[in-house]
Amino acid sequence: MNELIKVAVDAMGGDNAPAEIVKGAVEAVQESKKIKVFLVGREEAVRVELAKYTVPEGQIEIVNATEVIETAEPPVAAIRSKKDSSIVKGMKLVKEGACDAFVSAGSSGAVLVGGQVLVGRIKGVERPPLAPLIPTSKGVALLIDCGANVDARASHLLQFARIGSIYMKHVMGVNDPRVGIVNIGAEEEKGNALVKETFPMLKACDDIHFIGSVEARDIPSGVADVIVCEAFVGNVILKMYEGVGSMMLHEVKQGMLSSLRSKIGALLLKPALKKTLKKFDLEQYGGAPLLGLNGLVVKTHGSSKAVEIKNSILQCIAFQEQKINEKIKEQTVREEKA
Amino acid sequence: MNELIKVAVDAMGGDNAPAEIVKGAVEAVQESKKIKVFLVGREEAVRVELAKYTVPEGQIEIVNATEVIETAEPPVAAIRSKKDSSIVKGMKLVKEGACDAFVSAGSSGAVLVGGQVLVGRIKGVERPPLAPLIPTSKGVALLIDCGANVDARASHLLQFARIGSIYMKHVMGVNDPRVGIVNIGAEEEKGNALVKETFPMLKACDDIHFIGSVEARDIPSGVADVIVCEAFVGNVILKMYEGVGSMMLHEVKQGMLSSLRSKIGALLLKPALKKTLKKFDLEQYGGAPLLGLNGLVVKTHGSSKAVEIKNSILQCIAFQEQKINEKIKEQTVREEKA
Repeated sequence: MNELIKVAVDAMGGDNAPAEIVKGAVEAVQESKKIKVFLVGREEAVRVELAKYTVPEGQIEIVNATEVIETAEPPVAAIRSKKDSSIVKGMKLVKEGACDAFVSAGSSGAVLVGGQVLVGRIKGVERPPLAPLIPTSKGVALLIDCGANVDARASHLLQFARIGSIYMKHVMGVNDPRVGIVNIGAEEEKGNALVKETFPMLKACDDIHFIGSVEARDIPSGVADVIVCEAFVGNVILKMYEGVGSMMLHEVKQGMLSSLRSKIGALLLKPALKKTLKKFDLEQYGGAPLLGLNGLVVKTHGSSKAVEIKNSILQCIAFQEQKINEKIKEQTVREEKA
Repeated sequence: MNELIKVAVDAMGGDNAPAEIVKGAVEAVQESKKIKVFLVGREEAVRVELAKYTVPEGQIEIVNATEVIETAEPPVAAIRSKKDSSIVKGMKLVKEGACDAFVSAGSSGAVLVGGQVLVGRIKGVERPPLAPLIPTSKGVALLIDCGANVDARASHLLQFARIGSIYMKHVMGVNDPRVGIVNIGAEEEKGNALVKETFPMLKACDDIHFIGSVEARDIPSGVADVIVCEAFVGNVILKMYEGVGSMMLHEVKQGMLSSLRSKIGALLLKPALKKTLKKFDLEQYGGAPLLGLNGLVVKTHGSSKAVEIKNSILQCIAFQEQKINEKIKEQTVREEKA
């Protein structure tokens, strides 16, 4: 039997910890024999939750961590001072090689800072990007970068394009992924200073499939597989996805309830719409990987329920089996030689 | 009788010119006795369209312009070389005081460049922002800036906040409009370099109602009346609105057609949903004003139909009657003294 893929999970992170986190971890090991989950958090609280389920033997272990980093805490100070927090302990397991990956629904800032400071970057990776999958009419696209590094430079964006291509090809199985840069027009001369500087570098890059500028309007229709952008812009894109989506659903629901006729119509439509709307449910895609670290760190929504935790844990399998980090290392070595 | 408000309209601009433009102009003068429209474009083509309607006497006049600036043309060169184009001639009418406003569905670049070069900025306005209204659950919000000036500075954003507040108060009738700055988190210490620099300046500004950072996720729910951002980010927000909205509608429609049951449901729901979705129809709000110029320039979608042209023309009435430009001038004089 192959060695298990070891995933540390922040049992205390997010709005629904520890109950939903533990539930997600249990569902993950029930679904796959390939993984072992280390639930990092307050032992007593985690044990109480875990007692509710029947767990396959040897696939879940508790690692005690007495402290919790709150969302409101300044990340750098929290990482430094709370040595016995679930985030610091979980990341150290990855750093030391005891685990392959760490999944957390906790403080974004602490996860991003901890990833760089505790887990550490792969040599040659300038800025590890946070890269969530977003739904499109044609499937999913990788939005890279989305919150880890504001005010990035052109060389960072170039690296995001390469790392994103590796991820989409080997984890998502997209053959020759199309890379686009977010811009305010389709023409090459359009854009801000950063995009204008990056565009020719991407164009000259022969190891990615660059398709040029992508307007935000065309992202949802699936115009590219890897959407390269600076983190502030990426964050705005991701949040608009969530915001516009939920406002529209709210308004459509209000419309459905506005008359008896529409209520009957809504009842008949329900099964069909449920299937359609599942596609826009970001939870089913799991969390966003923080790429380019010595190990894998996955940040899930603070509001994560069990299903998102489960999917985030399971996505570590393909990442590990496809040796993504080795491929990123080979990439950075090639970059250095060039 | 008061003097008519004179609006020059680019009869050749956009995908549906001149037919829909002329139709929109006719509908506008049929709806309001306060305006006179100058249709600027190829006289013969405009006359043919105009002949289809009965027009109130003295409210529409044709101004011949033999050239057309195409969307693909580099804007600066086009504005310089095509002196007899509808955009250049229409803007000159405003510059010379023969018209109060200019409405165009033509080349965005040419309209933005022409606004600054031909119509000219109000003294003290550093960068005239393009500021469309976007629909929210609570009504509309002004997104400022949205494409006129990428890589803006903090002083520009501060001015956008003030100009946007004037517009929302006096044109849209919002009492004490709430101003938010687009950011990647709610805390004051978050953001990129530009936002970090601008935040304290907005906070110290006692002539606006600053409510702090606004996350993109909360824009659609109507968290602020004036959404301040740099143009690249504003463009992404506007385009995501359009892109996510149209993808979701497409998917919901697909879901509706997926079975006989859902088709019947959709039929019953149609009237209720139509009303709901009208709210997200950006056309009904008219075009985006380019603010801070010596006159008003309104840019409508390239795909504008008659209704958007009509509404864009009609929105010039409130702008003129409320003396928005005089209020902006007073504002810049106060800024200079401060």
